[in-house]
Amino acid sequence: MIKRVTASLTTLVGLGMLCALPAWAEEAAKEAPKISDIDTMWVLLAAYLVFFMQPGFAMVEAGLTRAKNAANILAKNFMDFALASILYFIVGYAFMFGEGNSFIGMTGFGLSGLSNGTLPIWASWMFQAVFCGTAATIVSGVMAERTKFPSYLVATVFVTGIIYPIIGHWTWGGGWLSSMGFFDFAGSTIVHSTGGWIGLVGALILGPRIGRYGPDGKSRVLAGHNIPLAALGVFILWFGWFGFNPGSQLAASGTDNAIAIALITVNTNLAAAAGAIGAMALTWVTFGKPDLTMMMNGALAGLVAITAPCAVVSPWASMVIGLIGGGIVVLGVSLLDKLHIDDPVGAVPVHAFNGMWGTIAVGIWGQKALGLGNDGLLHGGGFTQLGIQIMGTVVCAAFAMACMFVVFLAVKAVMGLRVSKEEEIRGLDIEEHGMEAYSDFQIFTTK
Amino acid sequence: MIKRVTASLTTLVGLGMLCALPAWAEEAAKEAPKISDIDTMWVLLAAYLVFFMQPGFAMVEAGLTRAKNAANILAKNFMDFALASILYFIVGYAFMFGEGNSFIGMTGFGLSGLSNGTLPIWASWMFQAVFCGTAATIVSGVMAERTKFPSYLVATVFVTGIIYPIIGHWTWGGGWLSSMGFFDFAGSTIVHSTGGWIGLVGALILGPRIGRYGPDGKSRVLAGHNIPLAALGVFILWFGWFGFNPGSQLAASGTDNAIAIALITVNTNLAAAAGAIGAMALTWVTFGKPDLTMMMNGALAGLVAITAPCAVVSPWASMVIGLIGGGIVVLGVSLLDKLHIDDPVGAVPVHAFNGMWGTIAVGIWGQKALGLGNDGLLHGGGFTQLGIQIMGTVVCAAFAMACMFVVFLAVKAVMGLRVSKEEEIRGLDIEEHGMEAYSDFQIFTTK
Amino acid sequence: MIKRVTASLTTLVGLGMLCALPAWAEEAAKEAPKISDIDTMWVLLAAYLVFFMQPGFAMVEAGLTRAKNAANILAKNFMDFALASILYFIVGYAFMFGEGNSFIGMTGFGLSGLSNGTLPIWASWMFQAVFCGTAATIVSGVMAERTKFPSYLVATVFVTGIIYPIIGHWTWGGGWLSSMGFFDFAGSTIVHSTGGWIGLVGALILGPRIGRYGPDGKSRVLAGHNIPLAALGVFILWFGWFGFNPGSQLAASGTDNAIAIALITVNTNLAAAAGAIGAMALTWVTFGKPDLTMMMNGALAGLVAITAPCAVVSPWASMVIGLIGGGIVVLGVSLLDKLHIDDPVGAVPVHAFNGMWGTIAVGIWGQKALGLGNDGLLHGGGFTQLGIQIMGTVVCAAFAMACMFVVFLAVKAVMGLRVSKEEEIRGLDIEEHGMEAYSDFQIFTTK
Repeated sequence: MIKRVTASLTTLVGLGMLCALPAWAEEAAKEAPKISDIDTMWVLLAAYLVFFMQPGFAMVEAGLTRAKNAANILAKNFMDFALASILYFIVGYAFMFGEGNSFIGMTGFGLSGLSNGTLPIWASWMFQAVFCGTAATIVSGVMAERTKFPSYLVATVFVTGIIYPIIGHWTWGGGWLSSMGFFDFAGSTIVHSTGGWIGLVGALILGPRIGRYGPDGKSRVLAGHNIPLAALGVFILWFGWFGFNPGSQLAASGTDNAIAIALITVNTNLAAAAGAIGAMALTWVTFGKPDLTMMMNGALAGLVAITAPCAVVSPWASMVIGLIGGGIVVLGVSLLDKLHIDDPVGAVPVHAFNGMWGTIAVGIWGQKALGLGNDGLLHGGGFTQLGIQIMGTVVCAAFAMACMFVVFLAVKAVMGLRVSKEEEIRGLDIEEHGMEAYSDFQIFTTK
Repeated sequence: MIKRVTASLTTLVGLGMLCALPAWAEEAAKEAPKISDIDTMWVLLAAYLVFFMQPGFAMVEAGLTRAKNAANILAKNFMDFALASILYFIVGYAFMFGEGNSFIGMTGFGLSGLSNGTLPIWASWMFQAVFCGTAATIVSGVMAERTKFPSYLVATVFVTGIIYPIIGHWTWGGGWLSSMGFFDFAGSTIVHSTGGWIGLVGALILGPRIGRYGPDGKSRVLAGHNIPLAALGVFILWFGWFGFNPGSQLAASGTDNAIAIALITVNTNLAAAAGAIGAMALTWVTFGKPDLTMMMNGALAGLVAITAPCAVVSPWASMVIGLIGGGIVVLGVSLLDKLHIDDPVGAVPVHAFNGMWGTIAVGIWGQKALGLGNDGLLHGGGFTQLGIQIMGTVVCAAFAMACMFVVFLAVKAVMGLRVSKEEEIRGLDIEEHGMEAYSDFQIFTTK
Repeated sequence: MIKRVTASLTTLVGLGMLCALPAWAEEAAKEAPKISDIDTMWVLLAAYLVFFMQPGFAMVEAGLTRAKNAANILAKNFMDFALASILYFIVGYAFMFGEGNSFIGMTGFGLSGLSNGTLPIWASWMFQAVFCGTAATIVSGVMAERTKFPSYLVATVFVTGIIYPIIGHWTWGGGWLSSMGFFDFAGSTIVHSTGGWIGLVGALILGPRIGRYGPDGKSRVLAGHNIPLAALGVFILWFGWFGFNPGSQLAASGTDNAIAIALITVNTNLAAAAGAIGAMALTWVTFGKPDLTMMMNGALAGLVAITAPCAVVSPWASMVIGLIGGGIVVLGVSLLDKLHIDDPVGAVPVHAFNGMWGTIAVGIWGQKALGLGNDGLLHGGGFTQLGIQIMGTVVCAAFAMACMFVVFLAVKAVMGLRVSKEEEIRGLDIEEHGMEAYSDFQIFTTK
């Protein structure tokens, strides 16, 4: 704004008074503060909302698993964010945004030597740190109810300190994928798919929970123990997504940014709503009853799917993207079930499948010109862009899965990845943490 | 701000240099962007907070009803917001804010053809959409524990797509009630009463839950199953109301708006606090013990009551309005009990009675001149204004009730409104959704 | 910004046109609005976040105590904030920020006669009011499960109306401690220690809960009944702390404030993460298992500890402060256990011990020059400052404890402080409030 005003001033002076001071005015423009207070406030508030997605994930994962493992899943959600915060400060941000090559950054460890842009470096870091924490915490849901606590922590160190930052460098850090024109506005692929695919690798190595598939191969329901808690978690995630997507504009000052964050907000909300409706409709038709868990995961599916394209699609396209996302989650849950892959909370269909879908949707409905003032977001558009989107999301998935396949196998060899059969039946809360989640209640833990 | 600077510039040039450029300056003023980035940020953040009231309502309603119906009430809360989002985008906003007559708007379906004001059209829509969702979700509480899920969805379509937008058009959309000087700043009548009265009509048609009134006609307590969850919901609602009321200023830029939103915040908080104290005191005196449910509903009552007058009353008046609101909720619950009207969560006293009370309070304590820079909010003041307020809130109530009386009866005739006796006793979660809310817990469902 | 632009204008006109209008320009500068809309928005949003810490405390305290007392602890959390709101409006703010002497303020009762600064008076009050509510609500946790409801309310009146405002006057109100250079940025001592020490006095007078220490003197675990709820509460508190600390800058406009609130955010988050890790590591080493309750209290410990120094330390120092804070909480819980002081939720180690630790840490790692634009925050630095910090936090603790010792004894004499043995065993929910928190669940209440 200052710049614009200064420019107006120069014009005024130049035109009106025939008294040009171009050198002086340029000086003034240089002196103008680079940091925008409005943008900083916006990004910090958005970061707080994204942080708040942590209890969202924690409540969803605790609510959709069994009471005997509730403290364990909460502890994992708690500590993966704590580790992400520290590691992303010391090494992660440097790997992701440091100067280096097109594969990885190598400067700015502990943020040293980094300078402010339009945002203070601290604000930039904070916003990125909560994204890193989001990617990490998705994993815990897929691997819930059977993973050793210390082994999970070790895996988290690799996810938050190395894997996520590298994928982030390829895209948001100016690496090779961004050079090719790959577009993922707020991280359908970078954050959500990454977390989802890593979880899938973990689930494949762990195998299904005891009792999840009968001797006849038929799947059995191991129902979540606290649906109101899970529903609260989904609402919190929806709320936090208003930081995730609109915050990713990284600016709120000026007309263009104001319009952009408002449109992103609307698209985010409509996709979530359509996702819930889509999943409800498909379960109602398929199974005869509208399942609440599916409505909830449908809303999350819509949110994940709109995360990549939210800045470059219309509200109508957002509704379609969300609606299809809601369908994908229902079909995805069935698919995993048939493949005997045990994902207790449905995080793979929500984050991995829909992260991929949302990234691809950019190539279908993404528009260069939405009057948003975003500078040439989409390179080719149409077929070329679609191809880049598909390639990008597949490569990121393959890289994340390959790396963590090695990490999980190493962890398994060194310290073990899965708890003992006895512990799994008794519940992880007692053995791993020496406590119960609901000590005054009559709980059934035999199943 | 740009405008003001441009104006200063013009003055400077004009007065100081005797070098007037009025034509040019006017051009510049026209070119200046109309959209305020500060206002946009404020309204979007407020909209996020109002969205967060959805889990507030969901937790209150789930917590204050029985465990066997928890998933059902959550599903209703979930889907009414999803439907509201889609419908209010496609038709609702057009009916409410489109050009038309003094009864209903008829342009801007799907927001097409609408242009930005000081807010981007997307921001305006988002803020109004979460208000529409609030009105809708109030209904589910009054009709809890006995309404068929699909029937509730159909009713919601009418509430969010037609009834609420029409009442909104009369007032905030520039229709006949606003022309008469009716004042409802953030929606005591428009949002809360509308939701409450519609719920009352539903409750009347449904009749009370099985076991709510004994064969002797005496009322029995069907206690809420999760008071901590309900308390959390009330706190979330209180938090969200800081978006609801201060956000309704629709602006935060400049001194006048800064003062206005700060005063509205204080008034909102004091009314809630006074409402909790008022309800606690009255129950303590009347029943001998301070009931937590009543404290909670008392706070909500204060919040609903201050919603209409928050911008035009003093903090002292806010305390009085809240205190009386807290009393109204206690008396209202007793009244419904005597009339054998079954409102499981007390939403009619909170939203319908206190919405009316808050709207009327504008006519008692509303002041034209609070130094807020609001442009002539109250027309007549005193007796005339009081009359307009009473008339307005009564007409809106009558309209909402009459319309929904027809809708509910039609739904009842076509698909049935109430679940079967067997289903009600067993719980709606199993029959409607094929699931349990607390599958690991020992639950009593026979009562 | 307006000011800066006006200044540029003046320069331009003066230098470029040789047409100086200093008198006129000064006039214009004076006319410029004092109130900053950006600062007001920031402080109001921060206040909303701090308000949201109320359910955070409520859920932590309810979750970490027993099911039979859940409604009671919620009612206390609810009403202490309601009372704080009203009392801090009528008298508290005047005692704290009014003109008076270096001990207490004596003007501005009901905010009358106070004028706006860069913030509207309403915004200043609201931000301070939620801090007062925080101090008050800490007390309820330490005294949980055995304190009479009305007696707690009376004690709260003294805490929120008198004690907290006086300590606040000494520091933030410009009293004698601030004159000496005592530095407590966001209230490690003023808010958290005050609440924690007052709770400790209460716990000492009350004595431990029945069954907490066996006949052999050995301590027994009276486990919390709802760990997911408590975990949610901790996450909510962490979230709310992003209002508590960054909001205490009381400004967000301009480069210096933008950098300051961003750094404070990072420090707050890193200290919380390090606190969780520190507490986890120490319990794991000491007791053989990583306890979730300790991780949670460790995060809170880090947050409390960083509250005083967050604006004047580096992120590295913040991690160290948090890590030590996490250790303090584990050792503190053991210490209280040995002393047979019964603090059901661990609030004394979290708030009292770590409030003191954080305040002292200012004297160890606090730096005058962090490039924050804060005006001379630290006076002496080094040894002198360290001495002032220790003296200040000890004096505040002693004052709070002495005053409330008298109040609690007086309450005990007049109306009794502790419930009867029968009531304590049966649970406070039934006797104090005539209700149950979980009426549909099978609950064990005999222990």
